[in-house]
Formats: sequence, structure tokens, C-alpha cells
Amino acid sequence: MLDVCLLGTGGMMPLPNRWLTSLMLRHNGSNMLIDCGEGTQISIRQKGWSFKPIDVICFTHYHGDHIGGLPGLLLTIGNSDRREPITLIGPKGLERVVKGLRVIAPELPFALDFIELHEQYHTLQVKGYTLEAYKLNHNVTCYGYNVNINRQGKFLVEKAKALGLPVQYWNTLQKGGTVTYQDKEYQPDAVLGAPRKGIKLSYCTDTRPVKNIEMHAKDADLFICEGMYADEEKENRANEYKHMTFEEAASLASKAHVKELWLTHFSPSLVRPKDYVHVAQKYFENTKVGKDRMSTTLKFEE
Amino acid sequence: MLDVCLLGTGGMMPLPNRWLTSLMLRHNGSNMLIDCGEGTQISIRQKGWSFKPIDVICFTHYHGDHIGGLPGLLLTIGNSDRREPITLIGPKGLERVVKGLRVIAPELPFALDFIELHEQYHTLQVKGYTLEAYKLNHNVTCYGYNVNINRQGKFLVEKAKALGLPVQYWNTLQKGGTVTYQDKEYQPDAVLGAPRKGIKLSYCTDTRPVKNIEMHAKDADLFICEGMYADEEKENRANEYKHMTFEEAASLASKAHVKELWLTHFSPSLVRPKDYVHVAQKYFENTKVGKDRMSTTLKFEE
Repeated sequence: MLDVCLLGTGGMMPLPNRWLTSLMLRHNGSNMLIDCGEGTQISIRQKGWSFKPIDVICFTHYHGDHIGGLPGLLLTIGNSDRREPITLIGPKGLERVVKGLRVIAPELPFALDFIELHEQYHTLQVKGYTLEAYKLNHNVTCYGYNVNINRQGKFLVEKAKALGLPVQYWNTLQKGGTVTYQDKEYQPDAVLGAPRKGIKLSYCTDTRPVKNIEMHAKDADLFICEGMYADEEKENRANEYKHMTFEEAASLASKAHVKELWLTHFSPSLVRPKDYVHVAQKYFENTKVGKDRMSTTLKFEE
Repeated sequence: MLDVCLLGTGGMMPLPNRWLTSLMLRHNGSNMLIDCGEGTQISIRQKGWSFKPIDVICFTHYHGDHIGGLPGLLLTIGNSDRREPITLIGPKGLERVVKGLRVIAPELPFALDFIELHEQYHTLQVKGYTLEAYKLNHNVTCYGYNVNINRQGKFLVEKAKALGLPVQYWNTLQKGGTVTYQDKEYQPDAVLGAPRKGIKLSYCTDTRPVKNIEMHAKDADLFICEGMYADEEKENRANEYKHMTFEEAASLASKAHVKELWLTHFSPSLVRPKDYVHVAQKYFENTKVGKDRMSTTLKFEE
């Protein structure tokens, strides 16, 4: 199960009732953010989710509208009594950028761990999330993220019985632990079926619609993608500033066979993005135009 | 004439509908800010005032809740087509702090001029504002500000006539310029009466209620002062964190004989500061409990 909340849907500048693009996820007691523009902490508060369990913050890139809210957020997390380290993930330069911003948040009651991305593609295991990061095409180095919640195989009672393992060991194996019984070690796969389909969320901003996205967003349960401009006539502008139109984002969703598309990161000039949903739906039917604090819960298949 | 807008009234953390403490002033086409916490640019937008004429930004100190909104604001001012330099004023360390924050706003289409304060008391002339800055008592170096709009003496037609100056020179002298006529130089005071009472606004946060404030806020038309805690029982807390209670702020207002007091910079724990207005009014009758975008226009006396 993965709770998803689009904290903000604005690009470039925050507007009243439209915060800068940021995504918050919850899984198994651990919260994760992707991007953190100015005002992100307000949106978290409006949503009513907690600051203290924020274990991971990923950044797509370091333009102000994607990271300006970090120092304030860190101070507020500090006031929530957190003492455990927070993992920050982002393109090369992360530690330098955060050090700069921390000039106004020099003392925090928790440590920051940094993971800097430098390859075309990374895969990382953090706090129960399986993250994939891949390079996009913006005017600075920028990464898209997949957040996967893996799902192990079914627990097969017959297999456990056949091994002659007493019932009290079953739970450990089912939860992925190793068991030693009568001098023999048992791994989970001894009692589990083949891994089942997990949950996949794909998040992608700021970028031109490159092939890489289509490949990595493949079959995602939810694809959250920038749509800076709604109007097809703005394609030149999208090209110049390395962003996407609704049409381009929806075409990617279609090619990647995702289940659902949420558009986000709207230009301040796009006053009512919802009015343009038909533009995207021409290319991908199951499109929703994001708005602040739009939420869902992605579940494992029955 | 001085337009005054309390952009935010929160201390420490922004809350939904309560931005961090920031004040915006407008005089004669030039806008000035004192403090700029996270979200300040949103409040400016909600108020409907312009970004482009912001000529001066003063900082009381560099805690996150007073400066976190600066990089975003600068980026937004940059997008407003401004090319003229902006003057930043604040305690020693200003240039270093701003340099740190500008890691996410490295390229701006205007220059920043820095004025760092280091004395107990400074007086400065900037863009038609006469500023006074004086040291407060917080847990870091912190300054209070007076913003004065001076008012010259009345134009005395009789004096101008007596000098034998042709009418076309009167306007220049009235506006403070110098005139040369028949090889003789005339200064404005040759045609003006004694300077008249101007406008004085006093702004003061974060601090304990020191004598210095009483002295500098003397006879202010408007005294905007922190009241972090409403409850008298919180005096210990105010003492520990170097803030003020409503009672302390109102007592200062009374001793300084100001015309009006606005309280601001409320603790996030103070949910409905307005409910405590009577606590302050016991000490100073003309107290208002600030709220976001509370505004007034201070005018010269008739």
C-alpha cells in the first residue's frame, strides 16, 4: 500500500492556492518527499500528514521552485522531535546546495545522509522503498524517479509443512527473515511462491519528453508527469525552456502503457489547467489534471 | 503617505493562513520589505502589491523564519522584469547568508547592494525612507527598525516673492532642489518654513523588552511589535527564548507613547491570538492583534 499526495502543482512561482511541485508518499510508517519548493511544509500541514516520519527527501534538480522549502522544512521537522537521520537524494552537487541553504538552519537535532546521483540510472533501497532514478532532459541535470513497493510471493503453507518447520518460525520467513532450525538455515524463498506484482509510481519533472521516460515509466500504476503548458501552441516555449505540453505528457503516458496519468508543474500563466484536460485525454484517456493535495492510495492487486 | 501591510504574523513556523512575519511598505513608488520568511511572496501576491518596485529589503536577523523566503522572492522579482539594483540591509553576515541562499538563485537580472549593520545605532537614507536601525536583545544579533518619512516645511509664497524669484523656479525649491538665478544660488530653506512632523513607523522583533525599544519607538505613529506569547504565564518561556509576551509589548507601547500598537510574530502554539487582545489592552488601550495582510495608510498630519 502506498499513500500518495501531490502537495503542490505549480512550476516556477507559487501562487495563492497553488504550491510548488512536491510529492509526498507514505508506506509502512515511513514518509518520503520528492522535491520541496517554498511552502511545502504548509501543504503538508494542510493535508494533516506528519513531519516526524519523513525519512527520505529526493530532488529532481536544484532550481529554486523544487528545493526552496527545504531549510524551513528541516527546521520544522527538527521541532517535531525527530532525532533519526534523514536521507537526501539528488543529482551531483546535493551536499553543496544543502550546505548553502543550511546557512539559515545550521543546527538540526538529526543528521543528514547524502546520496548523490551521477550515473544515467541508479537503483536504491531506502526504508522499504525501491527507488529508481534516471536522467531526464532539462537545462540542468535532472532525474526522474520510480518508487516501487515490491511484493513477495504468497506464503505456501504446504511448502512450510513439507519442510517440517514448526509453526512459530513461519512468520519470520514470511516477513523476509532467515530461520535456523536443527542446525539448518532456511531462507524465505523456501516457503514463498514467486514474487508478485508490486506497486509502481513514476514521477517526472522537469524535462522534454525523451524516450528514457517512456521506458522507465513502463506499466506504472500512477505516472505523475509535468505538463507546464496546456496549449499546443506553447510547444516552442516548452522546447526552449525544456518542459512539456499536456499533449507531450499524455503521449508518453500512452506509449508507456501506464494505468493513470496525473499532470502537474503548471506554468503560472496557466490559470485554469483543468479546462485543458481534453487536450491530454485525446492522447491518453485516463488523465487527471493535478491539483494541490490530490491524493490516492495505490494498493497491491487482489 | 506610507502604505503599510503586515504580510505575515507567524513566528517560528508558517501555518495555513498565517505566514511568517514580514512587513511591506510603499512610499512614493518605492516598496520596502522588513523580513522575508518562507511564503512572503505568496502573501504579496494575495495582497496584490507589485514585486517590481521592491527597492529595499531589511532583515532583523537571520533565523529561518525571517529570511527563508528570500531566494524565491528574488527569483520572482527577477521574473517581474526588474533590472535596477535592490538594497539589502541587515546585521553583519548579510552578504555571507545571502550568498548561501543564492545557491538556488545564482542568476538574477539585477544587482544586490549590501549594507551590513554593526553599530548599536545606524541611520540611513534609502529611496526616500529615513531608516534607523538599533540593536535588540535576542539570542542572536538582531535589529529593530524605524521607518521615517520626513516632511519639509510649508512653502511660503511671501518668502519666495520677497526674494524676487520668478515663479518658474518655485517648484524646484519646493521639491528640495537648488536654484541659480542671476548668478545667485538659492537653497530650499530660503522659501520653506520649519520642517513639519513626518511619519514614524517602528518595527521590532525578535527581542526581550529592553529600554532601547522604548527610547527608539518614542511617539511612533504605528508600533509593530512581537508578541510571541499571549498568556502571562508564558513569561518564563519568553525569557528563555528571548521573546515577549503581549503584556510586555503593550507596556513598551505605553511607555513609548506610540499612537497605535500592532502585535505580531505569534507562537504556533497561540492558535487564536485575537482572543487575548484584552491582555494587551490592559496596558495599552490602542492595541490591535495583527493578522495577515492587515493594512493601513499613515498620513501626514493636516
